[in-house]
Order: sequence, then structure tokens, then C-alpha cells
Amino acid sequence: MRNSELISALGNCINHCNYCADACLEEENVKMMVNCIRTDRVCAEVCSTLAQVLATKFEDVDDLVRYCQKVCNACADECGGHDHKHCQDCAEACRKCAEACEAYLA
Amino acid sequence: MRNSELISALGNCINHCNYCADACLEEENVKMMVNCIRTDRVCAEVCSTLAQVLATKFEDVDDLVRYCQKVCNACADECGGHDHKHCQDCAEACRKCAEACEAYLA
Amino acid sequence: MRNSELISALGNCINHCNYCADACLEEENVKMMVNCIRTDRVCAEVCSTLAQVLATKFEDVDDLVRYCQKVCNACADECGGHDHKHCQDCAEACRKCAEACEAYLA
Amino acid sequence: MRNSELISALGNCINHCNYCADACLEEENVKMMVNCIRTDRVCAEVCSTLAQVLATKFEDVDDLVRYCQKVCNACADECGGHDHKHCQDCAEACRKCAEACEAYLA
Repeated sequence: MRNSELISALGNCINHCNYCADACLEEENVKMMVNCIRTDRVCAEVCSTLAQVLATKFEDVDDLVRYCQKVCNACADECGGHDHKHCQDCAEACRKCAEACEAYLA
Repeated sequence: MRNSELISALGNCINHCNYCADACLEEENVKMMVNCIRTDRVCAEVCSTLAQVLATKFEDVDDLVRYCQKVCNACADECGGHDHKHCQDCAEACRKCAEACEAYLA
Repeated sequence: MRNSELISALGNCINHCNYCADACLEEENVKMMVNCIRTDRVCAEVCSTLAQVLATKFEDVDDLVRYCQKVCNACADECGGHDHKHCQDCAEACRKCAEACEAYLA
Repeated sequence: MRNSELISALGNCINHCNYCADACLEEENVKMMVNCIRTDRVCAEVCSTLAQVLATKFEDVDDLVRYCQKVCNACADECGGHDHKHCQDCAEACRKCAEACEAYLA
């Protein structure tokens, strides 16, 4: 499969973002997690679309990869600011995914 | 709902792209429809993600709107080159969606 | 387009669920909205998949329509229990979508 | 993460189905691949929604798992009937995913 490293990083990022968004809802102080939930959801959604587009021979994909990289970095920053394990794990998955986007574009 | 005109255009575009992609599979000369099927799928997917992101207060969305506009125009061009009713209807939905993206960015 | 009434009800339900899930995050008492956010997200996702599958000639779809109907009713009940306008609007969209599922199955 | 074995099998199945659907479009005899393309797309979509729902604490999920299992088996049968490597690989991913659904339900 073409692009398999990026597709694999995207899959990992999607799972962590979906899980983190829902786990945040269970936290004592949900109010503090609002931006994390929102960014997780956007990140999962953008990563999922990129993974689908990369599985095809559609060629004009670089701008979507760049947008995905930006969203992954934003999500890594947001999640990285919270101590919960699901946030820290998610931040790491987002960071790796942003790096895979960068490697793809290089 | 914020952005309701763009979200409505995206919904219409998603439905036409999904329908056109599958209807193309039934055409006598499928081979000729390959790019149409592929572009329909990418367009439906990108529009669906944009609709979800626009439903949120996530702010950094302009680059995704621009990418969506580009994909909608590409899909309108591709579908517009085929005479089947589902292709012509899809081309029109894509064109309107690209215009709604442009109006949003203005 | 086949199934256009159900597909239209699904599109409306998707938009309301996505909007309601994010608007709930802005409410004073987010804690009270946790189940609403979660159910909105599941409902939007299931409706989106059903809309895509219904746009195709894939035939074994009734069990998915039944599941979607159940999720729409659950989401209507959950949202209907909150006074916020986005919750009440969402409850109505979910109820109509559940009815469209029932009409499809009849 | 809860349900991580099933979520992992779903991710693998999604990637293979998306890739196979597009690779089929490049085959000499596209006409023969029509059902494979259609079933791949439905399977990828249903698996993606199940993965998202399983990442949450939403509880009423068994009927969706059962539907997913059925679609994965249908896709495995369809893909398994074609000799292309992407079809055979996809059939295996679908079969494993159907087994993971069954294990979840047991």
C-alpha cells in the first residue's frame, strides 16, 4: 500500500483522539476539557479523511496533508497541556502523526 | 446554526457525490467513469469533514474551506464532462458548493 | 435519487447532532450535558454512514436502518430532556429521522 | 483503551477496503470489480463508524457489531473471489475483522 507509514500514523491518531474526546467527558472537571474534546474531534475527522484520500490515486493532496499537520500539532499542544493519561497518549499520537505528515511532504 | 448556507451546500454535494459514484458503477462503460468515481468519493469525504468542523467553534478552518473549494471545482469539472444525469446533477451540486466556499471565505 | 426522503432526514439529523454536541460544550453546566454530547456524536456518525450506504445499490441495509432508528430515538430522548434550543431542535431532527427510518422499513 | 483488539482489526480492515476499492478502479476489467468496489466502500464506512462508537462509553453497540460482522463477511466473500493481491489482502483483513466482531460479541 502506498503511503502506508502516514496511513498507519493517521489510524493511531484517529483512535487516540476519539478515545480521548470521550474519556475527557468522564473527567471531574469537564469544563477544563472543552477545548481538548473539540480539538480531538476535529483532529480525528481530518485524519480520517486524509487516510481515505491517501488510499486512492487522487493526486492533489498536499494541501490536505498540510492542514492535517497543523491540526495534529494544535491537538498535540492542547492535549499535552493536560495530565490525564489519555491526553498525554493522545498528544504523543498527534505529534507522531504531524511528523509523518511532514515526512510525506518532504 | 452558524455557517448554515455552506453546511447546506455541503450536505447537498455529499449526497450527489455518493450517489453519482455508485451510479457510475452501473454505467455500460465503467472504464470511462473511473476518474469520476474517484473524485466523487474524495469530494464527498472532504465535504463531510468540512461540514462537521463548521458545526463546531474550531476556528482555524479557512485552509480546509479552500481545499474543499478546489476539490469541488475538480469534481464539477470531471462530472461536467459526462452526459449522465447523475453526473450533470453532481456537477451542479459541486459548483454550488464551491461557490458557497468562496462566499464563506470572502 | 432513491431513498431521498430518508437521506434528507439523515442529513438534517447529522447537522443538528454535530451542532448540538459542540454547543453543549459551551453550556454553563457541561457536566449535565455529557450524555447529550456522547449520544449526539454517535447519532451523527451512524446517520452519516447510513446516508452513504443508502446512496449505493448495496442491498443488505435493513439492520443498519433499524440500528439507526434506535440511536435516533435514544438521542431524541436524551436531547429532549434539556431546555437549550440546540437540544430541543436536535431532539426534533432525531425524532423525524427515526420516523423516516420507520417509514423506510415499512 | 477498551476494545482495542476490535478497534485495531477495524482500522486494518478500513485501510484495506479503501485501498482495494481504489485499486479495483485501475484493473483492466473494471466491470468485473463493480461489486467489489461497492462492498469495499460500505465495509470501510461501517467499520469506521463502529471504531468511533467503540471508542466511547456508548453502550448499545451490539447490533452495530453484528451488522459490521455481516458486512465484513460479505466483503471477504466478494474480495476473496478475485485473484488480485489487493482483493486477497482485503479479504483476509475483512475475515479477521469479522472474527474480532464475533469475539467481542461472545
